[in-house]
Amino acid sequence: MNQFGKIFRLTAFGESHGPAIGGVIDGVPAGMRIDTGAVQAQLDRRRPGQSVLTTARNEADRVEFLSGFLDGITLGTPIGFIIRNTDHRSADYSAMAEIYRPNHADYTYEAKYGIREVRGGGRASARATASFVVAGAIARQALETLGIEIFSEVKSVGGISGNIGELEAAIAAAKCDGDSVGGVVECTVSGVPAGLGEPLGDKLQVMLAQAMLSINAVKGFEYGDGFAAADMHGREAADEFYYDTEGVVRTRTNHSGGIQGGISNGEDIVFRVAFKPVPTIAKTLKTVDRKGAEVELAAKGRHDPCVVFRAMPIVEAMAAMVIFDAVLLNRSARF
Amino acid sequence: MNQFGKIFRLTAFGESHGPAIGGVIDGVPAGMRIDTGAVQAQLDRRRPGQSVLTTARNEADRVEFLSGFLDGITLGTPIGFIIRNTDHRSADYSAMAEIYRPNHADYTYEAKYGIREVRGGGRASARATASFVVAGAIARQALETLGIEIFSEVKSVGGISGNIGELEAAIAAAKCDGDSVGGVVECTVSGVPAGLGEPLGDKLQVMLAQAMLSINAVKGFEYGDGFAAADMHGREAADEFYYDTEGVVRTRTNHSGGIQGGISNGEDIVFRVAFKPVPTIAKTLKTVDRKGAEVELAAKGRHDPCVVFRAMPIVEAMAAMVIFDAVLLNRSARF
Amino acid sequence: MNQFGKIFRLTAFGESHGPAIGGVIDGVPAGMRIDTGAVQAQLDRRRPGQSVLTTARNEADRVEFLSGFLDGITLGTPIGFIIRNTDHRSADYSAMAEIYRPNHADYTYEAKYGIREVRGGGRASARATASFVVAGAIARQALETLGIEIFSEVKSVGGISGNIGELEAAIAAAKCDGDSVGGVVECTVSGVPAGLGEPLGDKLQVMLAQAMLSINAVKGFEYGDGFAAADMHGREAADEFYYDTEGVVRTRTNHSGGIQGGISNGEDIVFRVAFKPVPTIAKTLKTVDRKGAEVELAAKGRHDPCVVFRAMPIVEAMAAMVIFDAVLLNRSARF
Amino acid sequence: MNQFGKIFRLTAFGESHGPAIGGVIDGVPAGMRIDTGAVQAQLDRRRPGQSVLTTARNEADRVEFLSGFLDGITLGTPIGFIIRNTDHRSADYSAMAEIYRPNHADYTYEAKYGIREVRGGGRASARATASFVVAGAIARQALETLGIEIFSEVKSVGGISGNIGELEAAIAAAKCDGDSVGGVVECTVSGVPAGLGEPLGDKLQVMLAQAMLSINAVKGFEYGDGFAAADMHGREAADEFYYDTEGVVRTRTNHSGGIQGGISNGEDIVFRVAFKPVPTIAKTLKTVDRKGAEVELAAKGRHDPCVVFRAMPIVEAMAAMVIFDAVLLNRSARF
Repeated sequence: MNQFGKIFRLTAFGESHGPAIGGVIDGVPAGMRIDTGAVQAQLDRRRPGQSVLTTARNEADRVEFLSGFLDGITLGTPIGFIIRNTDHRSADYSAMAEIYRPNHADYTYEAKYGIREVRGGGRASARATASFVVAGAIARQALETLGIEIFSEVKSVGGISGNIGELEAAIAAAKCDGDSVGGVVECTVSGVPAGLGEPLGDKLQVMLAQAMLSINAVKGFEYGDGFAAADMHGREAADEFYYDTEGVVRTRTNHSGGIQGGISNGEDIVFRVAFKPVPTIAKTLKTVDRKGAEVELAAKGRHDPCVVFRAMPIVEAMAAMVIFDAVLLNRSARF
Repeated sequence: MNQFGKIFRLTAFGESHGPAIGGVIDGVPAGMRIDTGAVQAQLDRRRPGQSVLTTARNEADRVEFLSGFLDGITLGTPIGFIIRNTDHRSADYSAMAEIYRPNHADYTYEAKYGIREVRGGGRASARATASFVVAGAIARQALETLGIEIFSEVKSVGGISGNIGELEAAIAAAKCDGDSVGGVVECTVSGVPAGLGEPLGDKLQVMLAQAMLSINAVKGFEYGDGFAAADMHGREAADEFYYDTEGVVRTRTNHSGGIQGGISNGEDIVFRVAFKPVPTIAKTLKTVDRKGAEVELAAKGRHDPCVVFRAMPIVEAMAAMVIFDAVLLNRSARF
Repeated sequence: MNQFGKIFRLTAFGESHGPAIGGVIDGVPAGMRIDTGAVQAQLDRRRPGQSVLTTARNEADRVEFLSGFLDGITLGTPIGFIIRNTDHRSADYSAMAEIYRPNHADYTYEAKYGIREVRGGGRASARATASFVVAGAIARQALETLGIEIFSEVKSVGGISGNIGELEAAIAAAKCDGDSVGGVVECTVSGVPAGLGEPLGDKLQVMLAQAMLSINAVKGFEYGDGFAAADMHGREAADEFYYDTEGVVRTRTNHSGGIQGGISNGEDIVFRVAFKPVPTIAKTLKTVDRKGAEVELAAKGRHDPCVVFRAMPIVEAMAAMVIFDAVLLNRSARF
Repeated sequence: MNQFGKIFRLTAFGESHGPAIGGVIDGVPAGMRIDTGAVQAQLDRRRPGQSVLTTARNEADRVEFLSGFLDGITLGTPIGFIIRNTDHRSADYSAMAEIYRPNHADYTYEAKYGIREVRGGGRASARATASFVVAGAIARQALETLGIEIFSEVKSVGGISGNIGELEAAIAAAKCDGDSVGGVVECTVSGVPAGLGEPLGDKLQVMLAQAMLSINAVKGFEYGDGFAAADMHGREAADEFYYDTEGVVRTRTNHSGGIQGGISNGEDIVFRVAFKPVPTIAKTLKTVDRKGAEVELAAKGRHDPCVVFRAMPIVEAMAAMVIFDAVLLNRSARF
C-alpha cells in the first residue's frame, strides 16, 4: 500500500516518467488555513539543480491542488494534488531496459512484479518523494499553528563532519572523482507536547522510523542516543527529571530524544537518518542483463553526488506528517 | 493501536501485573501445522532468570491457546492466546505510585492518559513482548516450511565486541557495579525469495524498522551497511550482480542487506538493532514526584543489567512476523 | 480480518467448542468508568435458555476481563477478555463431520479453508456474537455518559406484527411445527449529536450496515424509510427543517433516519435489520456429504425457533460500537 | 477516510465544482491488461443527459490516467486518475450558501466541519461516484478475465415493477409533476467461485453492504431473500445441496443469494439496493437558513427525477471492486 499515516493519511502515486505524480491527503481537519505558496516553497527546496553540487536537471515541479479547500481553508474533505512530469527525455534511458543497475531497484521490481517501468526508475525513483513533501508541507502548517517547529541539518557527509563549507567540499571532491558519498541528516522537532505516540503499535519512534525508512537511499534510523546508547552504561544514559520554573516536568539531559515508552515527554524530539551514497556513479561496475549475460555499466550524464542536502526537506516533511498524525490520534487518548 | 501486521496481524493486550497478557493472531492461513511445544520453547528463551546474569524473577510463562487450530492444524480463523501473570508481588511497587522513574514510561503514560498502572510498568513493561514471541513463533514455523531461517547474535555489549565470554564479562562487570549496559543485536534472515516488500508504504525495511522500534529499549535500526553507509563512497557500497550456477541473479557483496528499493533481492536480509542500557540501576538518581517535589531514587532488588541476550528471541519473533506478512502480501503482487 | 471499528476496535476470536471465545478491545480512551456487572447483564440478555421459546442450552457465559482497566477506570490500554466455553457435548455433533447442513456455513468454510471445525459450527456459530456484546456493552457505557441511548424492538416475526404476546405466539406455533421463523429488529439511537459519520468511506449508515450484516442470519439492513423510500415520491419523503425553541436545527419528520449525506443530523437514528429463519429445523432436508453422496438430514434436539429476541442485545451492541467509534473519529473533524 | 477496499483499494477525492475529482487505485496486481476505452464507456453510462428523462447537464466526464500502467499493462504500482470538472456554472448555486436544502447534506456537513462547499453539494455530490465507476471498471476487467460477470437491472420505480417502458412512464409522470421517485436496483454477480469473503470482519455481504450504502441516495441493502426472509419460515428458505453433473456442490434454490456464513458458495450473488427519491423537487418546501430564519425553497432548473438508471453502473462498479478485493484477500486463505 502506498500510504502513510493513520488519520492524516497520504496515498501517493506516480512513476518518474509518467504523465504525473501526486496523491490524496485524507484526514485533514476542516478549518485549517493552507498557504499554497509555502507548500510550493518546500517543493522547491527538494528540487535538484539548485547548486553546482546537485544534478542540473530542471524539474520545475509545480503542485496543482484539485480539491479539499476553498479560499485557503480546508473543508475536511481529501486534498487531491498532482505534479506534472515535464522532463521526459526517455531516450536517455532506453539502453537500461535490459540491464539491472547495481544497487537500484531494477532487479527487485522485476522479480516482484514481472514488469517494470525502466524510464527513470519508475515508481522507485526519488521523484516520488515530491508527493511526500507536498503532504508534509500541509502538516507542517498545522504544526506551526500549534507551536511545533521542525528543523534539520546535515551532520556528516562521507564520514566528515564540519561546517557547510567542509561538507560541500567533501561532496565536490566525490563529484570530481565521478563518485558519490553518503551522509547523515539530523532532525529536531521542538514544541511537541508530552503525550504523543500510541503504544504499542504506533509508538512515536515507530511512526518516525516507518516514515524515514520510506525515503529513498535511507539505511538507518536512530533517535536520542541511538546506536551510541548501545555502547553506554545506565549511569551515562539517565535523563533525570526536574520541575522547571513554570512547574513543567522536564529532563536535564535528552538521551531519550524526547520519547519515553513510545510517547513524547515534552523535550525536543531528535533523530538521525543515514543515507547511503547514490548508486549511480561514473565508475564501471559489473552487472547482468535480463537474458543471462554479464555486462559492464558506467553511468553517464548528470547525477547527484550526494542526496543529503536535498533530503532535508523530505525528512522534515515526513516528520511533519508523523507528528501531526500523532496529534490527531492523541485526541482519542482520553474520554 | 496495539497491532502489528497487515495480513498476518497480531493484536496484543495486557499489563505486567494484571490477570494476563495475550493477543489475537489474525490472518493465519488455514492448513498450517502448529507445534505448540516449539512456541513454548521460544517463550522460554525470552524468560528471565535463566542465568546469574539475568534477573532472578521466575515468570514461568505458559502460553494457553484458545482458538484457531484443531489437532495442530490451523483453521484459517484467529488464534487467541493468553499468558497468565503469576508473580504478583505488588507490594514491591507501591512506593512507585507517586514517583516518575527516570528513563521509564511513568511520566509519559501519565501525561498521555491521566492515569497509569504503576505495578511493574503496566503496559509499558517489557513483559508485553511475550505476546510478540508467541505470534512470532507461529510465523516462524510457517517460514521454516518455506525454507526461510532466522538467526540473531549479540554484536556488542556496552561497546565491547567479542565472544560470548567477553560479552558476559562486560555484563557481569556492570552488574557488579550496580550498573547496566546497552548492546547491539544483529539478525539475519536467510532463504528469503526475491520480491518481498510493498513499495512505497510497506517497504520491507519499513516493516522491519516498525517491528524493531516497537521492542522496549530499542533506540535504533539499520539494515545492510546501515549508518556505516553514510560514511562511505559509492564505489565502496556497490553490490555488483552476477548469475550463479543455477542461473539466479545474485550480488557478490551484500551492502544492501538483502533489500533494494524496498524489496528483497534474494540475498540474506541483515539488520541491526540498538538497545539502550536498562534504566533501572542501583545508582541514586534525581527525579520528581507527582506533587511537584524533587526526590531521589535508587532501584532495589533484582534487575537485568543487560537485555540483549533476552532480546534475541524477541527480535527474531518480530522479524518472523514481518517476513511472513510480506510473504502473504506478496501473493497479490501479480494478476 | 476479525475486526470491527477504526479507533474503538474489537478484534475477536473463538470457535464455538474450543476452550474459549474472546477478544481485544483497542482504542478505548483512558479515564472511562467500566461497570463489569452491566457488561455481564448485556451478555445474559443474549444467552439462550431464557424462556420456553428459546433453546434450553445453558451456556452460562461469564466474561473474564484480563487487562485495560484498574479499579474500574480504563487505562487507555487494550481490554482483553475471554468467555470460556463450558458446554462441550461434542458427541452431539460427530455425525455432522461428513455432511454439509443446508443454509449453514459448513460447505463454504470448507470450500474456503479446506478444513473446518464441525463442532457447533466452529467460528461460524452465533456464539461468536457474545464477544460483540461484551465490546458493545463497554461502548454503551461510554455513550450513556454522553447522553446517547440505544433501544431496540422486534417489529415482526414471520411477517406478523403485533404486541409481544402475538409475536411469541407466532414463534411458539413455528416451534410446535418443528419449524422456525425470521423477523425484523428495529433499533433507535437517541441523543446522537449532529456531525457523526465520515464521508465518503465511513458514512454513518455504512458503518451501521457493516456492523449489522456481520451478525449471523442477517439478510438486510435499511435506515430511515429504507426500502419503502424506493416506492415513494420526493414530496412524501421530504424532511423539512425548522428551529426548535432552543435554536437547534431539527426536522419535522424523520424519513432520513437521522442521517443525511452520511452524517448524523441530530434526530434519532433509526434502522432495521432483517433476520432469516433459523436454518436448523426438524423437517427432513436433502443435502450432500463430503464424499459425493446425496443424503437426508433432520435436525434433532434443542434449537431456537426464532433468533430475533436474542438478537436484540447483539444489534444494540453493534450499534453502540459504531456510534462510539464515530464519536471518536469525529474528534479529528476540525482543526 | 475516503477509502474502499482492503487490498484493491480506492482512495478518492474531489468536490463537485472544484478543479477535478479523482482517486488513487492501490493494490492493483501487476500484469493486468487495462482497456481505458472500456473504463470510459462505464463512465459514459453514469453520465447524465442521456435521455429526456435524466438531467440535461452535459458533464462530458473524461478520465485521465496518470500512473500505474504502461502500454496497457499494470505495473503493480498505484493507478492515479483525474476527471476535470468542466461545467462550473457557480452562479446557479450562489443563493444556496445561506440555506440548508431539505434531505441534502448541507446542514450535516456544516454541523460536522463548520464549513461547506455550497456549489453543487461539494463532496456530497453524486458526482463523486464517477471515481467509483473508474475504479470499478478496472476491477471489472480483472473479473472478466476470471469469468466473473456483473449485471444489474431496475426492479421497481416508485413502487411500480414492469418493463422498461412502464418504469420510464413512471419516471416521466413524476417529472411532469415536478416530483421525483425512488427505486430498487438488483445486481447479480455470476461465475463467483466458492470461498470468497473473510469472516467475521469482512463477510462478503458486509463488504457489499459497505460499498452499496456508500452510494448517494441509498437507503437499504439486502441479499438473497433479504427482508422477505424475515417473513418466512425455515422450511420455505432452505437451499438444499446437490452435486451437479460435474461433481460441483450446488444449491437447488438461491435463498442465500450466493453467500453462506459470509462466504460465497458458488451460486450467483444476488442483492438489491434501495434508492430514495431525489430530494431536489419543484415543490416548495419549508426549511431554514444559517441565521435562524425559516424560509421556503423550490428547486429550479434541471434535475433528475429518478437516479436508478444512472445508478446501475455505479452499483456494478462497487460490486466489481468488492468481488475483486475478495478474490485478492482470498489468496491468503490457505497456507
